[in-house]
Amino acid sequence: MGRDEAMRARRIVLAQRPVGLPRDDDFAMETVDLPSLADGEVAVESLYLSVDPYMRNRMGPPTGPGPAQALGSPVAGGVIGRVVESRSEAWTVGDVVLGSYGWQTAAVLPEGAVRTADTHGLPLTTALGVLGSTGVTGYFGMRDVGRPGPGDTVVVSAAAGAVGLVASQVARILGARVIGVAGTEAKCAYLTHEARLAAAVDYHRTDFADALAAQCPERVNVYFDNVGGPVSRAVLGQIAMRARLVVCGQIAKYNGEPPEGDETPIPTLLLHHGASMQGFMVMHYADRAAEARAQLAEWIHQGQLRYAETVVNGFDQTVDAFRSLFTGANLGKLLVHVGDQADHSRA
Amino acid sequence: MGRDEAMRARRIVLAQRPVGLPRDDDFAMETVDLPSLADGEVAVESLYLSVDPYMRNRMGPPTGPGPAQALGSPVAGGVIGRVVESRSEAWTVGDVVLGSYGWQTAAVLPEGAVRTADTHGLPLTTALGVLGSTGVTGYFGMRDVGRPGPGDTVVVSAAAGAVGLVASQVARILGARVIGVAGTEAKCAYLTHEARLAAAVDYHRTDFADALAAQCPERVNVYFDNVGGPVSRAVLGQIAMRARLVVCGQIAKYNGEPPEGDETPIPTLLLHHGASMQGFMVMHYADRAAEARAQLAEWIHQGQLRYAETVVNGFDQTVDAFRSLFTGANLGKLLVHVGDQADHSRA
Repeated sequence: MGRDEAMRARRIVLAQRPVGLPRDDDFAMETVDLPSLADGEVAVESLYLSVDPYMRNRMGPPTGPGPAQALGSPVAGGVIGRVVESRSEAWTVGDVVLGSYGWQTAAVLPEGAVRTADTHGLPLTTALGVLGSTGVTGYFGMRDVGRPGPGDTVVVSAAAGAVGLVASQVARILGARVIGVAGTEAKCAYLTHEARLAAAVDYHRTDFADALAAQCPERVNVYFDNVGGPVSRAVLGQIAMRARLVVCGQIAKYNGEPPEGDETPIPTLLLHHGASMQGFMVMHYADRAAEARAQLAEWIHQGQLRYAETVVNGFDQTVDAFRSLFTGANLGKLLVHVGDQADHSRA
Repeated sequence: MGRDEAMRARRIVLAQRPVGLPRDDDFAMETVDLPSLADGEVAVESLYLSVDPYMRNRMGPPTGPGPAQALGSPVAGGVIGRVVESRSEAWTVGDVVLGSYGWQTAAVLPEGAVRTADTHGLPLTTALGVLGSTGVTGYFGMRDVGRPGPGDTVVVSAAAGAVGLVASQVARILGARVIGVAGTEAKCAYLTHEARLAAAVDYHRTDFADALAAQCPERVNVYFDNVGGPVSRAVLGQIAMRARLVVCGQIAKYNGEPPEGDETPIPTLLLHHGASMQGFMVMHYADRAAEARAQLAEWIHQGQLRYAETVVNGFDQTVDAFRSLFTGANLGKLLVHVGDQADHSRA
């Protein structure tokens, strides 16, 4: 299938490496003509795109690992799109696919750069959320690294966030007593009423450390950490012997916040408790992602696992949405709605 | 077997909790009359006693875990002794035994508080060293926690110390390339010539971090840490993806040295590398200690594993010997020689 007129795409590129919380001028909006398709390529229009805290880390100083997000390139990340043109035998126009081409309204891609969005009968958006990298991260990070079971007390920071909401419920399903940490009373209510955690504590409370300790009379066996900073300091003061500490994210550090300085040094803490701390990367579980998706979907269908999504409407809102991750505006997975399946517009 | 005259013992008790490097007046030397034996008890005279960095941690502030060394009680630790009196069917006068009654020249103990010193044909002193807790710590800490193998680069801090010398050679035997860190050129020479490590680096070098990095062109897969502090900072700057960091000791911190402050926060470091850090406690491997002793002895008999001991003569030297651990005076296991097997003196 071909086209006569040029297909255009808007994209948001990294214009400069942010210092602190990303600003508008760290990014640039570009409009480009997409090339004609070569054999084996498809053109995909974006329906939903993902904004995730890890993207900040890839943008550069002060704390990013490699490979960094290239300057001048679209910010990389997961996208749900629809095939609108195909010179591939693998894909037909109308196929809904998952890609990782990031903050672009459309892209021309090799046929192998997209895959089927298998949502196990759940809404399409779950392919980027509870059944996407987010859910797989929460699943393996808790199940295989935290390894909680009956009798364990588990604390999850950013428990109402995309990964935390999955991780905390996985621990509950595995039989542990789970305490979620979140930033608003509404999120805490969601965690106890909907996600059915044993308790939830608002980290804005001035007596946060004491309130958390009160919920952990036998101390903390597993800490699944998405944030670092003062929340972690309070939890680390409560760990049990042989505790397992999963470092899944350090969102409180991604914008270069200075270290607090008065915490117990981690090596000493681990030594005194015979405890472990593991940095978790979902890429190391890539070959088992289907297993996680199938299990998570089954739990959802059984009513054991709840998921939540916050959808922001419009590609123009992407940077604002991304920034809002660092102020905790989202409940569950944060997505940007870019276009509808039925939308066949061309620029 | 009984006795007519009182048997006396000298003992070194913790008089106050040290602040910083322990001082003489943190301890008190006492002479006590030992009680007559009850049924099931033995009297043991000390031959060798152990001084270990972990004892400092138990003495109290600023960094100690529980249970702390009690004030007014003999400093606890391993002892090789000889049974000099017995009302136990388990033990006969002349038996050489291992106890954990600490810094005392003699003690009356329940028969179950001592065990046979099985040295697998090696000298008696090895029962406190390479075949004692020291060796078992190095063996399991490296084999089961660090888990090095062919292709791995392993760095061991305090590699010429009691635990480090075992751990570093275990890694070499398991096929890894091992770099030892030590504090003198003589120790470094021992590590390369006798322990046959791939390289050894003196941490007093002003270019230590660079010299270490030069020995680790493929970065560091396993770090077995006995010291913490600036040595660790240099190693942590060189870790590979999925590195395993074993925290066996933090001797640079035991006397309350302030944190350095400018290191990469550990959670972020682990997150960026998908790495793990595990606090290691040999007590968690107590039921497998015999396995470690048998393997270590076999390697020694085969010429694969070297051990070293530094023996200080005289019970009066115990506190000085203990303190010297923190300045790195010892090569291998540091022991205090208290009495000879043939010595039947009574006070």
